[in-house]
Amino acid sequence: MRYTLLKERVCRINQEIVKAGLARLTFGNASGAADGVMAIKPSGVDYAALTPDDIVILDIATGKILEGVKHPSSDTPTHRYLYRKFSGIGGIVHTHSLHATSWAQAGRPLPCYGTTHADHFHGAVPVTRALTQREIARDYEWNTGKVIVETCRQPHEIPAVLVSGHAPFVWGATPEKALENAIALEVVAQMALLHRPAKPIAQALLDKHFFRKHGPRASYGQR
Amino acid sequence: MRYTLLKERVCRINQEIVKAGLARLTFGNASGAADGVMAIKPSGVDYAALTPDDIVILDIATGKILEGVKHPSSDTPTHRYLYRKFSGIGGIVHTHSLHATSWAQAGRPLPCYGTTHADHFHGAVPVTRALTQREIARDYEWNTGKVIVETCRQPHEIPAVLVSGHAPFVWGATPEKALENAIALEVVAQMALLHRPAKPIAQALLDKHFFRKHGPRASYGQR
Amino acid sequence: MRYTLLKERVCRINQEIVKAGLARLTFGNASGAADGVMAIKPSGVDYAALTPDDIVILDIATGKILEGVKHPSSDTPTHRYLYRKFSGIGGIVHTHSLHATSWAQAGRPLPCYGTTHADHFHGAVPVTRALTQREIARDYEWNTGKVIVETCRQPHEIPAVLVSGHAPFVWGATPEKALENAIALEVVAQMALLHRPAKPIAQALLDKHFFRKHGPRASYGQR
Amino acid sequence: MRYTLLKERVCRINQEIVKAGLARLTFGNASGAADGVMAIKPSGVDYAALTPDDIVILDIATGKILEGVKHPSSDTPTHRYLYRKFSGIGGIVHTHSLHATSWAQAGRPLPCYGTTHADHFHGAVPVTRALTQREIARDYEWNTGKVIVETCRQPHEIPAVLVSGHAPFVWGATPEKALENAIALEVVAQMALLHRPAKPIAQALLDKHFFRKHGPRASYGQR
Repeated sequence: MRYTLLKERVCRINQEIVKAGLARLTFGNASGAADGVMAIKPSGVDYAALTPDDIVILDIATGKILEGVKHPSSDTPTHRYLYRKFSGIGGIVHTHSLHATSWAQAGRPLPCYGTTHADHFHGAVPVTRALTQREIARDYEWNTGKVIVETCRQPHEIPAVLVSGHAPFVWGATPEKALENAIALEVVAQMALLHRPAKPIAQALLDKHFFRKHGPRASYGQR
Repeated sequence: MRYTLLKERVCRINQEIVKAGLARLTFGNASGAADGVMAIKPSGVDYAALTPDDIVILDIATGKILEGVKHPSSDTPTHRYLYRKFSGIGGIVHTHSLHATSWAQAGRPLPCYGTTHADHFHGAVPVTRALTQREIARDYEWNTGKVIVETCRQPHEIPAVLVSGHAPFVWGATPEKALENAIALEVVAQMALLHRPAKPIAQALLDKHFFRKHGPRASYGQR
Repeated sequence: MRYTLLKERVCRINQEIVKAGLARLTFGNASGAADGVMAIKPSGVDYAALTPDDIVILDIATGKILEGVKHPSSDTPTHRYLYRKFSGIGGIVHTHSLHATSWAQAGRPLPCYGTTHADHFHGAVPVTRALTQREIARDYEWNTGKVIVETCRQPHEIPAVLVSGHAPFVWGATPEKALENAIALEVVAQMALLHRPAKPIAQALLDKHFFRKHGPRASYGQR
Repeated sequence: MRYTLLKERVCRINQEIVKAGLARLTFGNASGAADGVMAIKPSGVDYAALTPDDIVILDIATGKILEGVKHPSSDTPTHRYLYRKFSGIGGIVHTHSLHATSWAQAGRPLPCYGTTHADHFHGAVPVTRALTQREIARDYEWNTGKVIVETCRQPHEIPAVLVSGHAPFVWGATPEKALENAIALEVVAQMALLHRPAKPIAQALLDKHFFRKHGPRASYGQR
């Protein structure tokens, strides 16, 4: 039981997905990673019944299960691929939250229409291309990771993606930060739908808000 | 009191309809079936006041009331018709949930715009034709069952229908599964309205997600 | 303290307006009437702080306050006018519920797009004409009552109206029934906005659902 | 500890922002002012964890911190500018509430489509021009205050503004009144989006409702 704290943390973030209104039924899953291992929700388990013991621990490099008796989320290969390719991220939240998913279904990137968006994402949230039939037929979840990495050129400045026809994946330095970004994404996806047409904000305003909260010159929050 | 367990179960699923946000006032009803009998909500009874003793037990073949002192739901003949024709189903949930009902009112089938839909329904959720004046005037609820069966050619792969100008009926192997499908239908009906236009997903992606969760090769969930 | 029971009942219905999600802040008001008197919410009092002692009792014929130390709702003359003209009604609920109000603001009658509507209102919910400058300048609330009566030719079959540029007024045989109708109006106003365009349902279906629940041949509910 | 009561009051209004559904995460902030000092939320602190001791007290004239160990909200200069220029206001609420923000993002003033709006705002809620690159680059938050004052010619009759590409700022005679106006703004911003097109109401109706609740001839509420 080496991973007790990580399992508790990932369990709690999965439960927070539901409390934040980002999931119904067993949709979605959250994971966390540290020191070469990842912790993820088991497949198809009801959020209300989830306990830390249900969380599955895997080796990120090999995919081997290190702890846990449950079958891990079917999206595990996608999470694992992202942890391998996006250096420095420590949490991933995948939801089918209503508004972000509707953008993914429409296959359209989410423009930055205001400062709420700019506070969290330094530009439009991109949408992947559709997977090919071959990519779907074999290693579907691993290929979903690949198409995300192919799409996201600035994973630290824009820590989210809309997988075409599917739903968002969102990440961050920690599982808590990934959850915060997933909440922010859903909010801005909703705002962007409410009053159309709108125009993207100026680059100067985007920079101002993003760098007020992120990076070496950030002034927002308590230091 | 042979049907105590079935009545408790159907009572609970009716209450879950409200908790899941699928019903206001006394709209909607859930039933369950086993061994040739069905259990259904009484007509016009407030969900908050519902107890297992209120649930009415009927013989599916004859429609005769076997247990219960209350008048059964006015939609009972529709449920009964479906239990007779859709072999292997054990639960039906009828709601006037906002978004699914708006599709029924528009008289349009609900296309499969994403994997959330594909996880539950293997293709577009169909809409019935309007009932004729004659079908409305006489045996209206029984004829509603007939037009559903006429419309739904794959009741196990697409366990839901939108009755034109009315609302959805959703079913499943158990009352719990029918409720889950009713929740999923409402979610995908909402997503499909949020960002239009959207395009149906590719058949390969639809198949991948549906068969990941359903049928002999399903890998989703705990085994 | 002759009107203790009526005051308790009207107090509770006012509180239910908030619980049903039909009001924010101090928007809206409910009243009840019996034996020539009416009970109504005081003006501008927070719903959370409302007690039966706050409810004001007035003589319907003269408008004279019979019991209560608070100033009655500014909409009192509208309620009083309706009680005088719509024989047999015992409750009125006025809200600024979001969706019904948006129809009132658009100045459009709410068509009957489905059976949820038909279960409660036997046809489109009408919208009043705009009041004239003169009608607004003097006796505004009384004139609001007049324009409602001018608009509603079937107050018992369609127990609701959308006051143009303002909001809905809804009534019923009792305060509880008026609240139920106000909830139903908000639901169908929302459904009607979600998926446009839609077409009104056939008269036969409208009649079937309305008369299944209302009038001498009603079969819905427990008898 | 001279400002205990003001800090408690401003703490509570900040918490009410979340309860009223106007904020997610750490979006938004409320302040209060009296006798030349202002009290404001600290920057980036979770609403759930907020206590009166976290509230920061500043001198309105100089901007100097008088009490508090936390870093004040990054929007503090905007609040301070408004307290200096809008005489008689005692509270400011800044949120990123969904619907009001969507109007700010679209860069469109919010017309008065109904009496709910007229009860709180005596005309359309204006939208600012976009800030220039220079205004963004330097003293951004102070310049936000300036553009608000430039835009709002009647701050007491229309106590709200939509900052273009950003979000609303709302004020009032007290923090409580500012919160009430922020709730009302979000409600009317939502109503205005639901059913389009709509037309602004007549001036006579706007005046009637506004002056029924505000100013020397107000009759609404308890006197």
